[in-house]
Amino acid sequence: MSDTQRQEYKVSRAQHPADTCVTVGAATVGGGNFLLIAGPCSVESAEQIATTATAVKAAGAQVLRGGAFKPRTSPYDFQGLAEEGIQLLLQAGRAAKLPVVTEIVDAQQIPAFAEVDIIQVGARNMQNFSLLRQLATLNKPVLLKRGFGNTLDELLSSAEYLLSGGNDQVILCERGVRSFDPALRCALDVAAIARLKELTHLPVIVDPSHATAAAHLLRPVALAAVAAGADGLMIEVHPDPASALCDGQQSITPAAFAALAQDVAALRAALR
Amino acid sequence: MSDTQRQEYKVSRAQHPADTCVTVGAATVGGGNFLLIAGPCSVESAEQIATTATAVKAAGAQVLRGGAFKPRTSPYDFQGLAEEGIQLLLQAGRAAKLPVVTEIVDAQQIPAFAEVDIIQVGARNMQNFSLLRQLATLNKPVLLKRGFGNTLDELLSSAEYLLSGGNDQVILCERGVRSFDPALRCALDVAAIARLKELTHLPVIVDPSHATAAAHLLRPVALAAVAAGADGLMIEVHPDPASALCDGQQSITPAAFAALAQDVAALRAALR
Amino acid sequence: MSDTQRQEYKVSRAQHPADTCVTVGAATVGGGNFLLIAGPCSVESAEQIATTATAVKAAGAQVLRGGAFKPRTSPYDFQGLAEEGIQLLLQAGRAAKLPVVTEIVDAQQIPAFAEVDIIQVGARNMQNFSLLRQLATLNKPVLLKRGFGNTLDELLSSAEYLLSGGNDQVILCERGVRSFDPALRCALDVAAIARLKELTHLPVIVDPSHATAAAHLLRPVALAAVAAGADGLMIEVHPDPASALCDGQQSITPAAFAALAQDVAALRAALR
Amino acid sequence: MSDTQRQEYKVSRAQHPADTCVTVGAATVGGGNFLLIAGPCSVESAEQIATTATAVKAAGAQVLRGGAFKPRTSPYDFQGLAEEGIQLLLQAGRAAKLPVVTEIVDAQQIPAFAEVDIIQVGARNMQNFSLLRQLATLNKPVLLKRGFGNTLDELLSSAEYLLSGGNDQVILCERGVRSFDPALRCALDVAAIARLKELTHLPVIVDPSHATAAAHLLRPVALAAVAAGADGLMIEVHPDPASALCDGQQSITPAAFAALAQDVAALRAALR
Repeated sequence: MSDTQRQEYKVSRAQHPADTCVTVGAATVGGGNFLLIAGPCSVESAEQIATTATAVKAAGAQVLRGGAFKPRTSPYDFQGLAEEGIQLLLQAGRAAKLPVVTEIVDAQQIPAFAEVDIIQVGARNMQNFSLLRQLATLNKPVLLKRGFGNTLDELLSSAEYLLSGGNDQVILCERGVRSFDPALRCALDVAAIARLKELTHLPVIVDPSHATAAAHLLRPVALAAVAAGADGLMIEVHPDPASALCDGQQSITPAAFAALAQDVAALRAALR
Repeated sequence: MSDTQRQEYKVSRAQHPADTCVTVGAATVGGGNFLLIAGPCSVESAEQIATTATAVKAAGAQVLRGGAFKPRTSPYDFQGLAEEGIQLLLQAGRAAKLPVVTEIVDAQQIPAFAEVDIIQVGARNMQNFSLLRQLATLNKPVLLKRGFGNTLDELLSSAEYLLSGGNDQVILCERGVRSFDPALRCALDVAAIARLKELTHLPVIVDPSHATAAAHLLRPVALAAVAAGADGLMIEVHPDPASALCDGQQSITPAAFAALAQDVAALRAALR
Repeated sequence: MSDTQRQEYKVSRAQHPADTCVTVGAATVGGGNFLLIAGPCSVESAEQIATTATAVKAAGAQVLRGGAFKPRTSPYDFQGLAEEGIQLLLQAGRAAKLPVVTEIVDAQQIPAFAEVDIIQVGARNMQNFSLLRQLATLNKPVLLKRGFGNTLDELLSSAEYLLSGGNDQVILCERGVRSFDPALRCALDVAAIARLKELTHLPVIVDPSHATAAAHLLRPVALAAVAAGADGLMIEVHPDPASALCDGQQSITPAAFAALAQDVAALRAALR
Repeated sequence: MSDTQRQEYKVSRAQHPADTCVTVGAATVGGGNFLLIAGPCSVESAEQIATTATAVKAAGAQVLRGGAFKPRTSPYDFQGLAEEGIQLLLQAGRAAKLPVVTEIVDAQQIPAFAEVDIIQVGARNMQNFSLLRQLATLNKPVLLKRGFGNTLDELLSSAEYLLSGGNDQVILCERGVRSFDPALRCALDVAAIARLKELTHLPVIVDPSHATAAAHLLRPVALAAVAAGADGLMIEVHPDPASALCDGQQSITPAAFAALAQDVAALRAALR
């Protein structure tokens, strides 16, 4: 894509110099508003998601995440609780007064997402253009994650499917890309955050849990993302990471999340 | 995925030492049978696809390809002729006595593929597990392309969604992966072909057109894939590449395809 | 390299739990001490380097950088002032009361570095083991940059050449690695900083100028590196970036550097 | 580097349309002449290298390889026999009537290479410009390997250091680049071979041993390289791979090498 073409995109800052703000419930992201999303990789039970919701709300989270339709590399891994998972997530969110975000993996599931506040399109579906076209017709925020093998231009072009189809409530999410060093899961290039903020008016948040896949690296990477200008963070929090059905090694406890939220606030205050 | 886990997969050669053969019409791939697929990136008109079908059949192609639902990076690029494209492809294939392969991008389109001989899952949908699960219930060959940001283990795991769901008519297709050198589109690591042939009993074909995105590099890369042990090739052929609505720079003429087919046959004879 | 082998290395934190501190003149890096290095890509003239030295000293830099032997991709590009460049750098450093760091590209040049305070081994020479072995015999700090195609294990193994040869005054420098997105020069994975701090006791600084190759991305990336736990920064500063003989597009002015130094201090205070 | 700049390079085919041929002893590479280089990773003993020389000569090798100064990632690994290794290699080569190639890792070693027929610059030194400048003044062929993190433009620019310095006896060697899939060592993109042959008049050979680091993948990758247009192959052969001091897992036996040489000849005959 040439620079000229990119500037004609609806996602381009050249077309819309002011930051886009996306509002969900009492929370807003973009235009200087920071969004903290937290919750487990997967909804596992009513108790697990309710406990997490209460804890992350107390620690400062504004949106509750939790997977119900899980895109798992292996067909033999836990695939999520599907519609039941969405219901449990919604109940926990309402009880804790938190809007919810959860991932869709097929346009056929759209009816099940009617009450979900933000629909997430995961990294593996970033170029599922049929799904994007159908989400573009909804009046509902979409959280679009960058594919781990996709360029920034491709991320913006996928977002353009949403905006050109009529939905401009789009939050971009950087989560790292494939790199050659087996010592690290994904490479979270912080320059990508800064570059996206130049290229587009859409809010850009970061998912350091999937970027690092390692709870012990989460804090420094999350803080780095904030320092680089991210408009929010999405963090995997589980009441008992060791027993998580999915991604336990990259989940942190509610207590660790609360400490991180404080550090994020201090860092943001210092850079203001 | 550990070696142990991988060996328990249905796709694993440890579970099924003999080559799987997939037959479609008069053509078979696997077990020493080589498959030549050719046709345009997109079906553009009845005349274009009919002309191409006749030409590639004469040159030795055994299956006709042609895109109808096109996954395009930009929403403003030509998106294919959809159902009409499939009908034109089927008509051209029948007239030329060639089975056809075309790409599906959403499970909702499955009814439109009822008469298609091989359903292609493209690189961008390799981890669209919902689509894979639904294709697993059909009694129809699936051509599964490796995502340009995906590992071999992920490709095999995606194939496992098909086999574990009941469909073992699966053809894998290598088409190169993202790399750091802007001088070349994708890196077609020929070792991946050889490694896949060790790991799995499924046939492995190669798409050098998308790997190189450059017609002038097609012949050497196609021959290299054959020398590395590929069970087939899928080549983009257009009667007039300069006027193609999609991917013209990587398409070759029917004459160039005929010459390539002869070279492939000579090379295979030499290595037998 | 297995985890066991790595833990037996002299660079390993398992062998030496406490942070190593490297001191040069009045400055120390490591063990909580932050080091700010600044200066032009290349020493171009006595006036250019003297002006820069005074300006970066006033802004808070503790070490002056400036290239004299430049490793340039093309033989036709400016190759640096060689020995004369080192003399001009030393004069400017002494006048501004700043120790100096400059890059060596061949062990035959060691005599010319006798008065240099820190010898830099650049990304392209990270695995020039013959050079490393000879630098290991000097009683002088070495700043070892990660190669843009090298893993963390390889960086640590190269540092091990220095420590095993008798020189433990080693500063590691992360500067990003090759990635597939042409929109960004190198991917500066901030998790690498955090992971290195776990694996080794050596100080880890970051060069955001070479990572981004874009002055407009420098500030967010530099701050991110600090937030991720870097022990220092090395920044390219030029009195007139537009007229620089080398890397002008990634150099910032002394005024911008002064502002950045203040932001770094504020960020570090917030995270303490 | 722009296309225009590249075309002004001495390495460019635009400047020198005819293939460059490099001759060493009775062997020539380039201009349709194929070169087969074989030998152990490291010279280990007089007997080991003499045995290998005799065996690879009988199997069709035209040049004997063997490392004496070994660039090893870890300082604790076998570093080669140095000058003694070169002497043993030369003796074995003379006895078998084979010219020899061995790697230099520091310009200070040039005197030790006086009788060596081809000096190899390894992947880790591809951008050791000081070494290249000094090799440019010799009247001796240089085998320049592509760095595993370097682009084609960088490889050609490094070759330009040799040609612009007066040495046009340069053989390029592709050996794969870093990629994200841990299932495979390096990605040997065969399109790089074909693209190099378009861009430059210099001969291009391939080292499939280092690309795959796996003896069981060597044959298909070697044949693929030949099919893609490589002007030669460099193969690691050891009389007893299991006991090799270095890279045994990627070495093949003399018998396997003899079989490969026959396949290469058959393949080349088929493609003529």
